[in-house]
Amino acid sequence: MSPIRFAIPLCAWRHLSVLRSVQSLRGRQCGGARPRCSSTGLNGERSMEELLRRTVTPLPTYETRDKSPPPPDSNSLEFMYFYRKLNKEQKLVFLEKLSKEFGVDHRGVSELAVKLLDTQLRDSATVLQVEDRLRYSLTPRYRHLLGHISRVEGGVKFLVDLRADVIGITTSKVTDSPHMRDLNSTLKSLLSEWFSVGLLRLERITWQSPCELLQKISQYEAVHPVRNWTDIKRRVGPYRRCYAFTHASMPGEPLVVLHVALTQDISDNIQSIVREFATLDAIEEVQKINSAIFYSISSTQAGLQGVELGNYLIKRVVRELQSEFPHMAQFSSLSPIPGFAAWLQGFLGQYRKEGRAAELLSEQEWREVEEVTGAAHGAAALETLRALLGSGEWLRSERMVRTLEPVLMRLCAWYLYGEKRRGYALNPVANFHLQNGAVLWRLNWLADTSPRGIANSCGIMVNYRYFLQETSTNSATYLQNKVITASEQVLSLVSQFHKNSKL
Amino acid sequence: MSPIRFAIPLCAWRHLSVLRSVQSLRGRQCGGARPRCSSTGLNGERSMEELLRRTVTPLPTYETRDKSPPPPDSNSLEFMYFYRKLNKEQKLVFLEKLSKEFGVDHRGVSELAVKLLDTQLRDSATVLQVEDRLRYSLTPRYRHLLGHISRVEGGVKFLVDLRADVIGITTSKVTDSPHMRDLNSTLKSLLSEWFSVGLLRLERITWQSPCELLQKISQYEAVHPVRNWTDIKRRVGPYRRCYAFTHASMPGEPLVVLHVALTQDISDNIQSIVREFATLDAIEEVQKINSAIFYSISSTQAGLQGVELGNYLIKRVVRELQSEFPHMAQFSSLSPIPGFAAWLQGFLGQYRKEGRAAELLSEQEWREVEEVTGAAHGAAALETLRALLGSGEWLRSERMVRTLEPVLMRLCAWYLYGEKRRGYALNPVANFHLQNGAVLWRLNWLADTSPRGIANSCGIMVNYRYFLQETSTNSATYLQNKVITASEQVLSLVSQFHKNSKL
Amino acid sequence: MSPIRFAIPLCAWRHLSVLRSVQSLRGRQCGGARPRCSSTGLNGERSMEELLRRTVTPLPTYETRDKSPPPPDSNSLEFMYFYRKLNKEQKLVFLEKLSKEFGVDHRGVSELAVKLLDTQLRDSATVLQVEDRLRYSLTPRYRHLLGHISRVEGGVKFLVDLRADVIGITTSKVTDSPHMRDLNSTLKSLLSEWFSVGLLRLERITWQSPCELLQKISQYEAVHPVRNWTDIKRRVGPYRRCYAFTHASMPGEPLVVLHVALTQDISDNIQSIVREFATLDAIEEVQKINSAIFYSISSTQAGLQGVELGNYLIKRVVRELQSEFPHMAQFSSLSPIPGFAAWLQGFLGQYRKEGRAAELLSEQEWREVEEVTGAAHGAAALETLRALLGSGEWLRSERMVRTLEPVLMRLCAWYLYGEKRRGYALNPVANFHLQNGAVLWRLNWLADTSPRGIANSCGIMVNYRYFLQETSTNSATYLQNKVITASEQVLSLVSQFHKNSKL
Amino acid sequence: MSPIRFAIPLCAWRHLSVLRSVQSLRGRQCGGARPRCSSTGLNGERSMEELLRRTVTPLPTYETRDKSPPPPDSNSLEFMYFYRKLNKEQKLVFLEKLSKEFGVDHRGVSELAVKLLDTQLRDSATVLQVEDRLRYSLTPRYRHLLGHISRVEGGVKFLVDLRADVIGITTSKVTDSPHMRDLNSTLKSLLSEWFSVGLLRLERITWQSPCELLQKISQYEAVHPVRNWTDIKRRVGPYRRCYAFTHASMPGEPLVVLHVALTQDISDNIQSIVREFATLDAIEEVQKINSAIFYSISSTQAGLQGVELGNYLIKRVVRELQSEFPHMAQFSSLSPIPGFAAWLQGFLGQYRKEGRAAELLSEQEWREVEEVTGAAHGAAALETLRALLGSGEWLRSERMVRTLEPVLMRLCAWYLYGEKRRGYALNPVANFHLQNGAVLWRLNWLADTSPRGIANSCGIMVNYRYFLQETSTNSATYLQNKVITASEQVLSLVSQFHKNSKL
Repeated sequence: MSPIRFAIPLCAWRHLSVLRSVQSLRGRQCGGARPRCSSTGLNGERSMEELLRRTVTPLPTYETRDKSPPPPDSNSLEFMYFYRKLNKEQKLVFLEKLSKEFGVDHRGVSELAVKLLDTQLRDSATVLQVEDRLRYSLTPRYRHLLGHISRVEGGVKFLVDLRADVIGITTSKVTDSPHMRDLNSTLKSLLSEWFSVGLLRLERITWQSPCELLQKISQYEAVHPVRNWTDIKRRVGPYRRCYAFTHASMPGEPLVVLHVALTQDISDNIQSIVREFATLDAIEEVQKINSAIFYSISSTQAGLQGVELGNYLIKRVVRELQSEFPHMAQFSSLSPIPGFAAWLQGFLGQYRKEGRAAELLSEQEWREVEEVTGAAHGAAALETLRALLGSGEWLRSERMVRTLEPVLMRLCAWYLYGEKRRGYALNPVANFHLQNGAVLWRLNWLADTSPRGIANSCGIMVNYRYFLQETSTNSATYLQNKVITASEQVLSLVSQFHKNSKL
Repeated sequence: MSPIRFAIPLCAWRHLSVLRSVQSLRGRQCGGARPRCSSTGLNGERSMEELLRRTVTPLPTYETRDKSPPPPDSNSLEFMYFYRKLNKEQKLVFLEKLSKEFGVDHRGVSELAVKLLDTQLRDSATVLQVEDRLRYSLTPRYRHLLGHISRVEGGVKFLVDLRADVIGITTSKVTDSPHMRDLNSTLKSLLSEWFSVGLLRLERITWQSPCELLQKISQYEAVHPVRNWTDIKRRVGPYRRCYAFTHASMPGEPLVVLHVALTQDISDNIQSIVREFATLDAIEEVQKINSAIFYSISSTQAGLQGVELGNYLIKRVVRELQSEFPHMAQFSSLSPIPGFAAWLQGFLGQYRKEGRAAELLSEQEWREVEEVTGAAHGAAALETLRALLGSGEWLRSERMVRTLEPVLMRLCAWYLYGEKRRGYALNPVANFHLQNGAVLWRLNWLADTSPRGIANSCGIMVNYRYFLQETSTNSATYLQNKVITASEQVLSLVSQFHKNSKL
Repeated sequence: MSPIRFAIPLCAWRHLSVLRSVQSLRGRQCGGARPRCSSTGLNGERSMEELLRRTVTPLPTYETRDKSPPPPDSNSLEFMYFYRKLNKEQKLVFLEKLSKEFGVDHRGVSELAVKLLDTQLRDSATVLQVEDRLRYSLTPRYRHLLGHISRVEGGVKFLVDLRADVIGITTSKVTDSPHMRDLNSTLKSLLSEWFSVGLLRLERITWQSPCELLQKISQYEAVHPVRNWTDIKRRVGPYRRCYAFTHASMPGEPLVVLHVALTQDISDNIQSIVREFATLDAIEEVQKINSAIFYSISSTQAGLQGVELGNYLIKRVVRELQSEFPHMAQFSSLSPIPGFAAWLQGFLGQYRKEGRAAELLSEQEWREVEEVTGAAHGAAALETLRALLGSGEWLRSERMVRTLEPVLMRLCAWYLYGEKRRGYALNPVANFHLQNGAVLWRLNWLADTSPRGIANSCGIMVNYRYFLQETSTNSATYLQNKVITASEQVLSLVSQFHKNSKL
Repeated sequence: MSPIRFAIPLCAWRHLSVLRSVQSLRGRQCGGARPRCSSTGLNGERSMEELLRRTVTPLPTYETRDKSPPPPDSNSLEFMYFYRKLNKEQKLVFLEKLSKEFGVDHRGVSELAVKLLDTQLRDSATVLQVEDRLRYSLTPRYRHLLGHISRVEGGVKFLVDLRADVIGITTSKVTDSPHMRDLNSTLKSLLSEWFSVGLLRLERITWQSPCELLQKISQYEAVHPVRNWTDIKRRVGPYRRCYAFTHASMPGEPLVVLHVALTQDISDNIQSIVREFATLDAIEEVQKINSAIFYSISSTQAGLQGVELGNYLIKRVVRELQSEFPHMAQFSSLSPIPGFAAWLQGFLGQYRKEGRAAELLSEQEWREVEEVTGAAHGAAALETLRALLGSGEWLRSERMVRTLEPVLMRLCAWYLYGEKRRGYALNPVANFHLQNGAVLWRLNWLADTSPRGIANSCGIMVNYRYFLQETSTNSATYLQNKVITASEQVLSLVSQFHKNSKL
């Protein structure tokens, strides 16, 4: 890779506007902390190396590890400022360098491994001490800098965003660097501690909440997009609840948001929740509230991937609701099935290619499809069906809708229950709720007839139901044995699928 | 050790539903709510083992580490409940068992060490992966439980208190278990993350703060005890500031408290700060405020020993004060010198024993002492002097006070500057401020004439001054090179000590 | 007037327990909770009389005035409930009855007047006592009920709305009842006490304020309507301030709202304030802020007409801004001129009718108008001009705009300065700011080119400038001597008007 | 009265410290508002007159009453500053002058009275207008100034304190000026509007409340004095409630404070409420809470005498408690009986003087008294009894206590039920609760055995019980018919008194 030329305006540092510098550098006294620059324009990599060498200070020795003063905050600020100015390509170079050249001292680790093996027969005090040295030696050099960054204003948010970049790089497969994976896992482990549930604050969002927060909630809502302010007002109004976790280090920033509808029965339709405004000024009647429907949950920080927040949020909200409505009996999601329609297209394509159309629908079903569509028998009918489903045209004919209901329902049941990735549910929403210990409870026909709902999942939605007494068991069963707990409705649909599809 | 008999009511406990248990735990007063148990009385250690085996779940394998659901909260609650009911002796047994039998899997570590050495010539991906496995294998089994405990209500406080117990055990030398030291360092490292500065909240305490908080501040003030509510009102009134760090996990609990006096010049006397009430209703005149005097800093949580809070609090407060008083120029402590009087008694005793009285004071000084006290020359005079200092009687004679001033001042300077422990200042307050980068700036004669001040340090107090431009350098010099930065006054006193004491 | 038939559900109502009634009133949605009543339908007026007689209790005698317990709250609640159910026509009947039959006891007043005249030569104690009795006797009977209503939840808001109804009735001239005027002035005097400035709370509205509040601010903005949420975000963002008075009795309800722009110079154009979004994420630079421009002030409660709020809000905001920006030097409104265009049409019509077209514009001006419009000379040209101005078409031709500028500016200056109603400025916005002591400072050409601005005032806006040292004097001069303080620009335009229009 | 010489440092005005002036005078721009002074030292009365003439501006005419700008705030500030500097004697002179020379324009009133009588046969519009003019003319000139003062910062508190001075003067009978009474009643009527219940804020005081507030609550507690901070902590701890009304104009100042104990049964003893600390860390068990005992209510502002706050506070608190404890069934005070012991001494003295000792106690009772005390029969025994009661010695002998119980109980019942002032209960606490509609419910023997309790009321306390359904009726019965509603216990004691005392 040829050296990249940078035009990073390090000198511009000095010209930062008054206001910014007061905020970010408050407390910086010594002029020495100010990044040096040269007007000649440095070679990018050399400039990176210089910065890294200066800011990613070596680990203290094991003996002096408690006697080392933290570097000045300006160190962290300089690192943050430098990184933020990089473009995407430069970030990759920078992070590779950081993770590879400022990681673990492998030689030190080997030496201690040897030493450890030498001490195996010694007293436990010695063994423990060598283990502790070994543990310390396995700390990447950059680990300390990350800790210091977390202490300056905006530092935690910086690290969350940094990890989002690292995740971006590792998943996009631009690089296959194992060091990058190490950096990712170091960041994840640090963030997991800082975003530990004990440090999160549950906030109920209402129409009284700051506008700024509500605007963010609107923007972050990815499941059923918020269209306007009446829409969001509805979602925090009567018969609705909206909760978020926030964190002291990132004030005003909701980390994960849960939308709940309070209903009599478990909802089988999303439009009645997000589009019905009759109740905007209603007054809640407690006796009509029997169920809590989690109809949307969104994480907002890519950099917190793998740090469990959603699971904990659902559990906290359940407690909150139980204390508000002691007699509340039913807790369930009403979830989208992203990916079903796409999977279905592939699935049908496969059958057509293999000439197994007959195995997909019963004869009676094929006959009806042919009647409604006017298509010829066999592969042609399958192709027509596939096209219909792809375009959403099927929804226009009531008869077609009736014909397709059992077919799509059993295919969808199979998709959720039978399609796996590494043994766990392929569908990510299913996987999330099943990990939490929910039950794959009910598929709902014509539950989301918005264009988006039709395009994603042929309008089908699913309830993952939380039976509070059993979530622990279910969660363990799923995670450890990869067994999905499902209701009779679902199981029966799956067995219909088996019967028809002769899998 | 004979088996201890427990009456810990474990039964029925296990079946508490996860979600309700937190609530019901809180409300448990009436016997009825307490889980019933067998009247047979379990064997203590066996009961301990059973509990530990049940609650300290084994680490998941490396492969499944991200696929393991957390145990139910009731697990953590049961552990906490059990531990809290133990008496001191039982706690020792319990913690030894926990740290020893539920720590690191040494065999697993060894195997991975061998494997690591085998891979030394392999590609870095393999090396990194083995290192990561090794790192994981060095995790004590109890580490996960501690993490889970931190997530339940009151959990973090429990762990802080647990560590206080562990520290108590290791410092009291009841045991010399290396496993206990490991437990301590695991706890410290967890608490360090959770009490990272970014997660602390700076609170200014005023007369408007909740009574509960002010009462705690009063109780925790260990340096210059708060005698009554007028006293505490004074400390949060005009020309004073009181700041504390609090933490989201321990609401209403100040972790470290700093008292500041706002003065014209750097104070040389504590009574003028804590006993003068003339200003209770004064209105601060900004132009009279030139200096910030840190006259008391107290940590409140024994279990947070070694987690740096005081240092960060001082730095945050400096920033706070700079933003309130942009022209504030001087920052200094006015600190007690605990241990000086005790050290002095020992020191004088030593000289007497060694018959070196003459080396301690100049001839002129001895003559004056003899005149004032009427004591005979030599060892007798030294003994008289020692007794006088011990009793505080010397303070009654103005002439004696005048005579002793140069003597005590130079001895005290030596005590602070010259007496060391592992190379660092023996005096803990000195060590604290020197670590922070302050300068040993000025000794003040008759600065604390309270009985306590006389008894502790013959009334002498010391200013550790913070020159903001130089704290980083000073801190590093002290911590890394063990060199104390001191003012000319102090150095001159030290050299007088050298001259007189012929050390 | 024929008797109105009511279906007001009065029965059962009466027996509500005092304490519960507030609560149950709040929850009343379901028909079940609504008091049942006879299906026969009561005669309206008789039902009114019955209610009034029951709820508007007689004044206690002078002697027992401090010994009369307040009626139960249910009394007030019943009155409020009854009134709110009335339709507009019924309200008129009801209020006439209330004001006429439950007002002052005129006979009592006369008797005391006689008695007062009898005591003229007596000691002052006697005189004062009779005066006090007389004062008491002048209290309308309904005065006490109004006081009691103010004490129940929602009562103050009820009275504000009641007064809005009364004002509606008196200004619409449906009735000319002097008793109604008395009721109005009693209500005004009560509201003036309750909404006294000391009881108002100044709130700064920001993007952090509750959504509910911002939505209301948007709805209430009558001067330059808020179009969407970006619009309102702009108005509370950088270089803008938005303040409101709120009141403990009407939580979450802004009573009067002031929008301020922070600028370098005194603004001469409204679009640059309300339509420019470049600065949405800007950071305010203090040194660029020299002027505070009040560009919109809206009262929200019709019922608080005549209760001075706007004046006090401006003064409080000036103080607030002075404390935030100690060097702020210029305070001015940028105000619309509602009514100018309408007045102008009438004015031109008048000139045409009187054949005085020639007196309106100079010959040169007429020539230009004729050239641009192609209209014939004289009345025809005037008619063309009038039509052009009415349609806003004149704005399309640059030349026309140039031609009309001096004409419209001097006419507008005259409209503001010279047109009076009872001696005070006819234009209500002018009257408001002049009463506050502002100066009629500058007319701005093409200052509001929105359709609304063109239609209302041919695009002209005006600055009323507040010279803080002189507002008291100006206010007194205006109010007492009806003299308008104006700048040279304005006076010169007025004198041009005189010269041209030969008034 | 000879002219008083003042040494009011009006010139000192200029030297007010920076901070004060910023706060109090913020917004004062014009130098003219600054009070003029002369170094010669003015004659006091002349200086007063000058100030009054300048600050108490004349009432506008009826016609211009809505067209008069308020005087600048500096006017009010000057008046307040001047008044506050006066000593007690000067204040008397000042207030007499203010009330007499700046009151109602009696001539104007007479003229309008004449005019009113002239219009008696005219149309109602005319009558109403003359009445309104008459009403306006009855406004004292100082009334407007008081209104303006209420608008400046600290103004309302100033007026409350001013009224306290006025009340002090009128009750101490230093003067008998009817004008002073007028001033008092004007102030009261203004304060009544501003402190109307709708504008009061109910605050629950807890250990989390600001220290400043709790300290004030402690100081203000007049009924059962708070001895220390544990004492006050107890009163806001479990099984206790403490509520106060506060007001936006006097932030941080509790106006009236109510202490409540939550008990199973209606308390008959105060020590168990204020001296028992066992429950300090208890957790309230809802099922044990059946009754709310109001054991102390204190008004804090002498200047708000006659403005009903206590009554409303009790009612609000009842609502608050009902919502917290829906099943709470019993509401009662546990009240002291100040004045009973003093009244008793007088009563016994009277009987002795009239030689009616025999009529006071039954023969049996006298015999017992004589036996216990060893006193001779007749007047001597009565004298001994009186002395015993005066000294509190009777409490030392159990037998004496037993003997005296029926005697003191029936005398006390009579004192509360039968002793009147202008027809209402003589005892002020009784009068307060009876006005509120409570029932004189139960006398409790040995209910307050503190020295204070013994000295005030021979240890007896009384419950005034609130039956919520009946308070309105009771209140009206008492206030209008002067009839006390009492329980059977009380009535039976009263009848025993009648039987024995042959009144």
